[in-house]
Amino acid sequence: MPNISVQRIEDDLLALAKFGFNEADKGIYRQGFTDIDMEARAWVMKKMDGLGMTTRMDGAGNIIGRYGPADKPAVMVGSHLDSVPAGGIFDGSLGVMAGIECIRVIQENDIKLDYPVEIVGTSEEEGRFGGMLGAQALAGCLTPDWLDSARDAGGVLLKDAMAAHGLNHLDALHAYRDKSDLKAFIELHVEQGPVLEASDKSIGVVEGISGVFKWMVRLIGKADHAGTAPMDMRSDAFLGLADFAHEIQRIIDEEGTDRSRITIGHVELKPGFPHTVPGEVDFTIVGRDLDADVMKGLANACQRVLSAIARKHRLKFEYEQMSWLEPQYCSEKIVDMIDAHAKKRGYSHLRMPSGAGHDVQFLARVTHAGLIFVPSVNGVSHAPDEWTHWVDVERGANLLLDCVIDLATD
Amino acid sequence: MPNISVQRIEDDLLALAKFGFNEADKGIYRQGFTDIDMEARAWVMKKMDGLGMTTRMDGAGNIIGRYGPADKPAVMVGSHLDSVPAGGIFDGSLGVMAGIECIRVIQENDIKLDYPVEIVGTSEEEGRFGGMLGAQALAGCLTPDWLDSARDAGGVLLKDAMAAHGLNHLDALHAYRDKSDLKAFIELHVEQGPVLEASDKSIGVVEGISGVFKWMVRLIGKADHAGTAPMDMRSDAFLGLADFAHEIQRIIDEEGTDRSRITIGHVELKPGFPHTVPGEVDFTIVGRDLDADVMKGLANACQRVLSAIARKHRLKFEYEQMSWLEPQYCSEKIVDMIDAHAKKRGYSHLRMPSGAGHDVQFLARVTHAGLIFVPSVNGVSHAPDEWTHWVDVERGANLLLDCVIDLATD
Repeated sequence: MPNISVQRIEDDLLALAKFGFNEADKGIYRQGFTDIDMEARAWVMKKMDGLGMTTRMDGAGNIIGRYGPADKPAVMVGSHLDSVPAGGIFDGSLGVMAGIECIRVIQENDIKLDYPVEIVGTSEEEGRFGGMLGAQALAGCLTPDWLDSARDAGGVLLKDAMAAHGLNHLDALHAYRDKSDLKAFIELHVEQGPVLEASDKSIGVVEGISGVFKWMVRLIGKADHAGTAPMDMRSDAFLGLADFAHEIQRIIDEEGTDRSRITIGHVELKPGFPHTVPGEVDFTIVGRDLDADVMKGLANACQRVLSAIARKHRLKFEYEQMSWLEPQYCSEKIVDMIDAHAKKRGYSHLRMPSGAGHDVQFLARVTHAGLIFVPSVNGVSHAPDEWTHWVDVERGANLLLDCVIDLATD
Repeated sequence: MPNISVQRIEDDLLALAKFGFNEADKGIYRQGFTDIDMEARAWVMKKMDGLGMTTRMDGAGNIIGRYGPADKPAVMVGSHLDSVPAGGIFDGSLGVMAGIECIRVIQENDIKLDYPVEIVGTSEEEGRFGGMLGAQALAGCLTPDWLDSARDAGGVLLKDAMAAHGLNHLDALHAYRDKSDLKAFIELHVEQGPVLEASDKSIGVVEGISGVFKWMVRLIGKADHAGTAPMDMRSDAFLGLADFAHEIQRIIDEEGTDRSRITIGHVELKPGFPHTVPGEVDFTIVGRDLDADVMKGLANACQRVLSAIARKHRLKFEYEQMSWLEPQYCSEKIVDMIDAHAKKRGYSHLRMPSGAGHDVQFLARVTHAGLIFVPSVNGVSHAPDEWTHWVDVERGANLLLDCVIDLATD
């Protein structure tokens, strides 16, 4: 059984981390379509060139290195190369660098491929312009209208950011890969959560990406002087929210699963003065589950509970659904394959959902797609102290190698 | 039984309301030590001069009109003349104008006074420089140090604001009235709350001013990605706050009275992003009761409950007591007197605490002091649509008259 060299992956990740490294906070700043992001892409392409791969940048800024026979659907392997501001060295980069290591091992072991392997470094996954741009382009999910109007938080147009690097934004529509063109997609990524570490497993076999809904909720009562208004004459909007928050675990117990999440992350009281009973509260609800029907059950329960609480507290209840993203299951075939190889290697592993979004969720629309997680120390990601032990990197990359060989050979 | 003329009080209140009236929002803008506040004071003094009263402005900016025999302790009657920004026409002004009307009625009915009556329009009650400045000066509660350094929200020093009107701020220390110099103090004020209206009473016989404590509380957990962190692995600071808010009514039921209030008016989540489990929440607790021991019981219970919730949610709990103002009972003698006169007049009345602060709470430290409330329509105050029905103004002023005559005659 061939094995990857974790030392080479470490060397590559540390070299890649120099693109966008900030000495002050030790974070990586390599947001999509910045100069440093494009420099990193050029560097990775050169590395792929050096391995004799056929490389190109597609219209969406994805870099793709192809190795193996022509005229056959490709086994695509990879992840994103951009980072959040002050990100870590593994997020995204690991999946690309481990893919390149797989090619090296295949070459060193003279493994004959029946299908080509394509290593992809996707573009703008982290959300400067909305996120997963490269993956959406590959899966044919972009529209000209969106490409024309997308802007970052600073007001920069996507098309201008792309033009600055010689890219025509509408060429992203040419990045689409027909179903017949791909055999599978497989991504290796750090978990960015605490589950694997807490359960002492090296490998997460991801069954799918949770769907997510986001609501803006408003409860309207009556602002009152906190001294003159007796408790039983108030319409305290915040107490309505507190009652709802208190019911979240019950809603999950009754309607959800151990994969359900409901989070109140943003709260704004009006007027927000210590001596005034809050007459209004605006807050967000973000709900997640791997199953679309469970998501609907959670959302319906939130609405029922909020309506009842509003009546009880004499509040007006309004909400707006800002977004509703359906869950995306990974390919059962790939999930079983990852599982089987992990068993064969003797790696401790766990089937789990991904609560965060990943490129794989768009690739899963056009091909058989799967996602391998390795543990994040303390569950930390999107921060300079993001870390994954090299021994886990080694296991994840070996598993990726096993899957790639399995998929690319008859 | 002599009676006041509510028409004259209405005329006076509407004339006084012209000082600081804002056409745009129909609110009164007469904050302490502004030009318009001082103009209003001059106008009221002229009105008192016209009634043959001996008038003066003391070192704290209080205007005082004295009527009746010299060399006897005075029955002081009044309230404040300043307003909040966009305030109403009754708040404070009613107590001064009703006092002046009492003098008119005493004169018209040739009532011989054994003690002088002093009508006071106190200064800076509403809080431009902290509030109740005039009343604190009368009660001897100010210090030179505080007078030197007090500033408004815009950074203007009290001493400069006073100097602009020819006042030396340190002269406020000369405004102190010795106990032997006062026989009683009585204030008529709008309730600024919903209790009298809801219980269909015309008169509130105020038993005392609730004490108030203010805490800044911080619960510290751990910020996590709202997708990757399972519910049972979170340390969600906001859920700790929600659990606490949920217990407030129980805390009052067990430790408090129907006069207790606990309010969470300000809440700040960190980082405050919809997709991030809040790792920290800062919030205020404002607690009130008329009884000092009950206040202590409420505060202790808040601390116990927060400690227990912090343990349960794996949070760190910190708090700082920003202020602790003891409750102040009114004089039992004056409370009984108001009650008796209300009965005699056949006015529906209710004994109640004042949840808001009033000048009377400082005067009560140096003399027998009492406070009469009249209803606020919809409980509204500190707003242009503050209103009190004239029939209730009439009843309140008649009751004030009865008390003044009772107190100023042997």
